Amino acid sequence: MASRSLGETERVLARPEGITRTDRLLRACRGEAVDRPPVWLMRQAGRYLPEYRRVREGISFLDMCADVDRAVEVSLQPLAAVGTEAVIFFSDIFTPIPGMGIDVAFQPGPVIATPIRSAEQVEKLRVPDATESVPFVMEILRTLRRELSQPAVPLLGFAGAPFTLAAYLVEGRGSRDFATVKRMLTRAPEVLRALQARLTDLVVGYLAAQVEAGAQAVQLFDTWAGLLARDDYREWVLPVHQQIVERLRSRGAPIILYVKNGAHVVPEMIESGADVISLDWRVDLASAARLAGDRVSLQGNLDPCHLAAPPAEIERRVRAMADAVTPARGWILNLGHGCLPDTPVEGVRAFTDAARALGGPPR
Amino acid sequence: MASRSLGETERVLARPEGITRTDRLLRACRGEAVDRPPVWLMRQAGRYLPEYRRVREGISFLDMCADVDRAVEVSLQPLAAVGTEAVIFFSDIFTPIPGMGIDVAFQPGPVIATPIRSAEQVEKLRVPDATESVPFVMEILRTLRRELSQPAVPLLGFAGAPFTLAAYLVEGRGSRDFATVKRMLTRAPEVLRALQARLTDLVVGYLAAQVEAGAQAVQLFDTWAGLLARDDYREWVLPVHQQIVERLRSRGAPIILYVKNGAHVVPEMIESGADVISLDWRVDLASAARLAGDRVSLQGNLDPCHLAAPPAEIERRVRAMADAVTPARGWILNLGHGCLPDTPVEGVRAFTDAARALGGPPR
Repeated sequence: MASRSLGETERVLARPEGITRTDRLLRACRGEAVDRPPVWLMRQAGRYLPEYRRVREGISFLDMCADVDRAVEVSLQPLAAVGTEAVIFFSDIFTPIPGMGIDVAFQPGPVIATPIRSAEQVEKLRVPDATESVPFVMEILRTLRRELSQPAVPLLGFAGAPFTLAAYLVEGRGSRDFATVKRMLTRAPEVLRALQARLTDLVVGYLAAQVEAGAQAVQLFDTWAGLLARDDYREWVLPVHQQIVERLRSRGAPIILYVKNGAHVVPEMIESGADVISLDWRVDLASAARLAGDRVSLQGNLDPCHLAAPPAEIERRVRAMADAVTPARGWILNLGHGCLPDTPVEGVRAFTDAARALGGPPR
Repeated sequence: MASRSLGETERVLARPEGITRTDRLLRACRGEAVDRPPVWLMRQAGRYLPEYRRVREGISFLDMCADVDRAVEVSLQPLAAVGTEAVIFFSDIFTPIPGMGIDVAFQPGPVIATPIRSAEQVEKLRVPDATESVPFVMEILRTLRRELSQPAVPLLGFAGAPFTLAAYLVEGRGSRDFATVKRMLTRAPEVLRALQARLTDLVVGYLAAQVEAGAQAVQLFDTWAGLLARDDYREWVLPVHQQIVERLRSRGAPIILYVKNGAHVVPEMIESGADVISLDWRVDLASAARLAGDRVSLQGNLDPCHLAAPPAEIERRVRAMADAVTPARGWILNLGHGCLPDTPVEGVRAFTDAARALGGPPR
């Protein structure tokens, strides 16, 4: 499976004072002292890896998400291939949607056969028990959890957030403006409110089941919430995030909140109550660290395009980020958005190596 | 031509203390006292207007830009149809590009036959005299200037900014990530620098010629510069803006700088030296006004999707914006991005009427 041994990481962890990768990530989430930032990448199991492309060959994206063996295999690949220090299970934010009674296809982006735009349609949506509607997700997580116990590597769950899911369900497909859902804010607010409520129930149940199945932290992806003006975000997105965080609190797993294009809503991301806010590459890290104080940890935020830079330049940028986040409560090195399909593997390695090179006195 | 008289606007201007629309806009640009904010919309001459669709029928977009009569006609339409208070000439940011020796098609977005990615290609690019390469643009502007002298309505010129033009020229077409040009920042900086230098010369000459032909203020559109992280923007975009502003200063026409998705670079937009910064809808107006102080006027920034809201809601949002910008140096009411093709005409009217309803003591 591996094209590269875990040698370097293992040497670090073998130091007497070394902590496990699981401890490092969970401590960083909670703002506790760690030797250096942990590192993983959004969309780290993806097309940029030759070993991923081999497993993915001849199978549709949706089938792949439901194929426990293959999903487990590609979830684990980045550990050895590029030295990331957490595993996020291979899936898609749309995985739990068919269970609501919504027909989703991938062409290659998600396409909703009948966009949801009326109160009657929302009324008919089911909120299924995730262990029954997507049992394969729980099986993938349980299997990964076993695989990752020795050595101890953290396992992450995730879900799309209600606004982002609603944006697709209302629009019917991806869009530059998502104008249909944004117009709903003023033209049919009660429909959007009902749809978000239904999706909030879905997301809470889905993430709780993931934690039950072995996820040690969960990331909520609100990719399109950054399309909203700040006032609209405060009215439509922040309360939903707060409710999800509140309802998941007793599960004990840290919650990471990602908003693409959220430079204008960093204070609102902090107000969500999430343990970690995961920042778009356009957010100034030093300013975010000042706003965050000791209330929340940070994750991010290199521009994914810069993984194509020469390795020395990648290392320089990671060091600059480390300087900028000081003295953040905790920091997880990551990208500002998902890894692009044509990213050079050596750039990703340089990125994760740069995290390990930051080892030193506890931050 | 008009589906609605200019009655209301004319009544306002007929008041003894009334100022012309030209004075109001130019004073707002310079931060001088005005009775209320002027209003216009980015992409105000567009598909949302039935009279525009009639003129546009059966002619390609590129041919339309070069057709003086039709371009003049659609440029003027929004004045009567929706009550905007400035005219921006109908054209596209790619209009001056073929004169550089670059083949551009619209399918319907711009497509560059041979993307520019090497020093040799950049070396071959011409910087033509705009009066010779696009004489129709100057003819459109001269004609509009005559049409707009009685009553006095301001005429705006515009150009795409070098980074945005380079993004298309390097990528070859529109893109969600514009990863190719962003990778050039670290992999071929000298090529991108040379390309931007060539485009800077083009833009300066093009805007100077527009002012010569009658444009009373000019807007620089850096639509894609907001894709850059703040450090990258400071290195690659800010100095270019500063150079353009500096080189155009002696022409006397105020310069408006628009950056889509620029919530993270408002301080840098202010540093550009532009007279007005035109803000994406995601920029918090109150914060921008505090940052701007008396250094720069503001333009913007309603989310274009909200022109579909009920008229009372549009008016409420405009009043909230007016409260938020106080005490800005000057403020031009506009959208945060271009008017969308399926925008209801009555929403645009409600928007411009709301500006007139803000009349009162000098702001």
